[in-house]
Amino acid sequence: MMQKVNLGMIGGGTVGSGVFHAWQHNGTLMAARLGVQLGFRKIAVKAFDEPRPYRIPRALMTTHWQEVVHDPEIQIVIELVGGTGIARTMVLAALAQGKTVVTANKALLSAHGPELFAAAAKHGVNLHYEASVCGGIPIIKSLREGFVANQFPAIYGIVNGTCNYILSRMAAEGADFADVLAEAQKLGYAETPPDLDVDGFDAQHKTGILASLAHGFWVRHENIHTEGIRSVSRMDMQFAQQLGYTIKLLGIVKRCQMRGANSAVQVSVYPTLIPNAHVLASVNGVFNACFVRGDVVGDTLFYGRGAGKDATASAVLSDVADAALDLKHGTEVRVPPFVDHARKGRVLPMDEIVSRYYVRLSVVDKPGVLAKISAILAAAKIGISSVVQPEGHEGESVPLILMLHDAPNGAVRKALAKIGQLTAVKAAPVMFRVESFD
Amino acid sequence: MMQKVNLGMIGGGTVGSGVFHAWQHNGTLMAARLGVQLGFRKIAVKAFDEPRPYRIPRALMTTHWQEVVHDPEIQIVIELVGGTGIARTMVLAALAQGKTVVTANKALLSAHGPELFAAAAKHGVNLHYEASVCGGIPIIKSLREGFVANQFPAIYGIVNGTCNYILSRMAAEGADFADVLAEAQKLGYAETPPDLDVDGFDAQHKTGILASLAHGFWVRHENIHTEGIRSVSRMDMQFAQQLGYTIKLLGIVKRCQMRGANSAVQVSVYPTLIPNAHVLASVNGVFNACFVRGDVVGDTLFYGRGAGKDATASAVLSDVADAALDLKHGTEVRVPPFVDHARKGRVLPMDEIVSRYYVRLSVVDKPGVLAKISAILAAAKIGISSVVQPEGHEGESVPLILMLHDAPNGAVRKALAKIGQLTAVKAAPVMFRVESFD
Repeated sequence: MMQKVNLGMIGGGTVGSGVFHAWQHNGTLMAARLGVQLGFRKIAVKAFDEPRPYRIPRALMTTHWQEVVHDPEIQIVIELVGGTGIARTMVLAALAQGKTVVTANKALLSAHGPELFAAAAKHGVNLHYEASVCGGIPIIKSLREGFVANQFPAIYGIVNGTCNYILSRMAAEGADFADVLAEAQKLGYAETPPDLDVDGFDAQHKTGILASLAHGFWVRHENIHTEGIRSVSRMDMQFAQQLGYTIKLLGIVKRCQMRGANSAVQVSVYPTLIPNAHVLASVNGVFNACFVRGDVVGDTLFYGRGAGKDATASAVLSDVADAALDLKHGTEVRVPPFVDHARKGRVLPMDEIVSRYYVRLSVVDKPGVLAKISAILAAAKIGISSVVQPEGHEGESVPLILMLHDAPNGAVRKALAKIGQLTAVKAAPVMFRVESFD
Repeated sequence: MMQKVNLGMIGGGTVGSGVFHAWQHNGTLMAARLGVQLGFRKIAVKAFDEPRPYRIPRALMTTHWQEVVHDPEIQIVIELVGGTGIARTMVLAALAQGKTVVTANKALLSAHGPELFAAAAKHGVNLHYEASVCGGIPIIKSLREGFVANQFPAIYGIVNGTCNYILSRMAAEGADFADVLAEAQKLGYAETPPDLDVDGFDAQHKTGILASLAHGFWVRHENIHTEGIRSVSRMDMQFAQQLGYTIKLLGIVKRCQMRGANSAVQVSVYPTLIPNAHVLASVNGVFNACFVRGDVVGDTLFYGRGAGKDATASAVLSDVADAALDLKHGTEVRVPPFVDHARKGRVLPMDEIVSRYYVRLSVVDKPGVLAKISAILAAAKIGISSVVQPEGHEGESVPLILMLHDAPNGAVRKALAKIGQLTAVKAAPVMFRVESFD
């Protein structure tokens, strides 16, 4: 007789029904692979008749999530409600009941990670979250297990499909942000309101999880410098392309000092110019990718769908499989949590982070302007690597593009503020950072 | 007191010393992550003073591999000897002693997989082999665990770094195979003799392992149609590029019938034209990549260094970590082997496999030649999708490029044999398959 593990799920909408459907389709295969049978016992839904892409049998559904959490037969609870409110209550309640929890909820982990992991530890159970970052890509497993022998000097992630879709279309079509966003909303690739995605918060949640895992201390979301993609204009995309770059929203986790266990780490999210020849530049549309540099393994890339019911279901069920094997063997928490919540690591403030820059100024085309600008940069010890000034008419406002050498963000911020005050400079300077992946 | 697991290693050359070095560097971190201390107890080497990139302490070394296998304190034996002769004896001896074995040896698995896995099962221990395919990329773990909820309609792998290096340089520089090979040998990217790599056998070993894992039955190497890259000429690379393709050596594992547990599978290795826009076309140099299509997760890509002491060490140590956790928890074989050696699956013979084709003929430029060629193809029901004939001088030999629609390999083989016999055709037809990743 094959051992059986009972699953309960909270959330029966798009993703929840996707998980149920994938299990219906491949559950028998999974049992053969694992030597454990997985069975759904109860699925808590908002309403029996809420719209869902795949059918869930009426007999499995309940509208009371407590029935899932308190069912003594259920060993694994899958949380797919989303958000940071009721989901927190549900996950804490399930952990308190001694149930293993599988979640895809990055917002919840970002807001309440330490509390949730402490609760899991207290009750001797595991909290799995593969689906919270990069959808179907097994990036959490790869970092924790596949790359267990590595330190991580740098991780660069395209972790938000909505932003990548918008930026890819802007790059391919020379379109405006607002137009592409509106169409993405029509097509269901962006939500209304789109803030969580386009303002970078979703990417922040995921980048924080990757950073915590890679560096072993909990990175609080307040410490993650985050900029969204609203500031990326068609004009900047075009200038970037002329210079051999494309603009992507990157989650960046980079070790800044190479010595000591508590070396400082850059953890940030912002639109970044990346060279067209780099493999991340080819990641287009709603796809996600994670470029991981391990000190032993070298450079690697993981690529796949970062969202959607099916990709998410694949990741959720891989967590369920791991949890089921743990239950089969009586090893509830097989891989210890990598994150030591007692440990204080140092996240480098943005002003101290060194990078290269793309700067676009709107200047009056008259003699001496470039001299004044370069003087300000020179005084701040910021080097100019190249200048592009499209031909204009004397006395008119023209764009002036500067590519700057490595410099601290704080110094550049201050210099640009000064430059913005020059009378010949007609609009606030636009700045994006440039990543060379050295 | 943290539990300790003792390691023994057979092979102390390039890769072996790489594993030892990575453990020296990150062993403490691994122990913190795993809650298990890993310690090297004995390393069997060919000679104490054989050249190795990293030092191994004299006290750890022995020239008698039996001392590693028979040391009762050693729990995990790492085999890095390579080849299919003495390595087989060593692995079988270690398994018979109840030791967990970690190997990077794809040739050994390809030649003796069923025997070795049966021995592991008999002795209740595990045989790990992450490093055998795609070096540092955790592709075995991702297929078995990350994608446990998926069936695999298609897997395409650039799994041999030497071939990819040669083809990348031929594409970038318009260079000849022989010249690039000679230089690759000088740089240490290709061995002397280079047959195992350039004739496709190394790729065959790895593709067989991926196919077996993906489809649950052991794919014998005799059933893997294998062609190397010696037949790729500078001229074909250039014509391919004109048509929007590049040529890569691909390991292909594709399900050909969608129904039934025993559906037939294509498992093959050959130089393939792939569209420049496809993500695999950007995988250059010694890098490897594996494009995995899961029926739930969709399209994914894994990319990284496929060989070298450090990338291999990362994979070997990830297997060691898994094995150590199994020893810690007393769950020797946690994830059952996916491959059912009793099961007979069907590998489709090459003649039955349907694909598209690039054909280059050397023809005398005179009226009626194309008519004769097209008549032979039409009689075999093979459609022509495009024709390229560079301008020549009447009566002279010129290349004629045909792109053919989907057709079975057998039919195309026979048609090309007939075409080769036409008096106007001056050399044996050159044929490469074209992959469109639909």
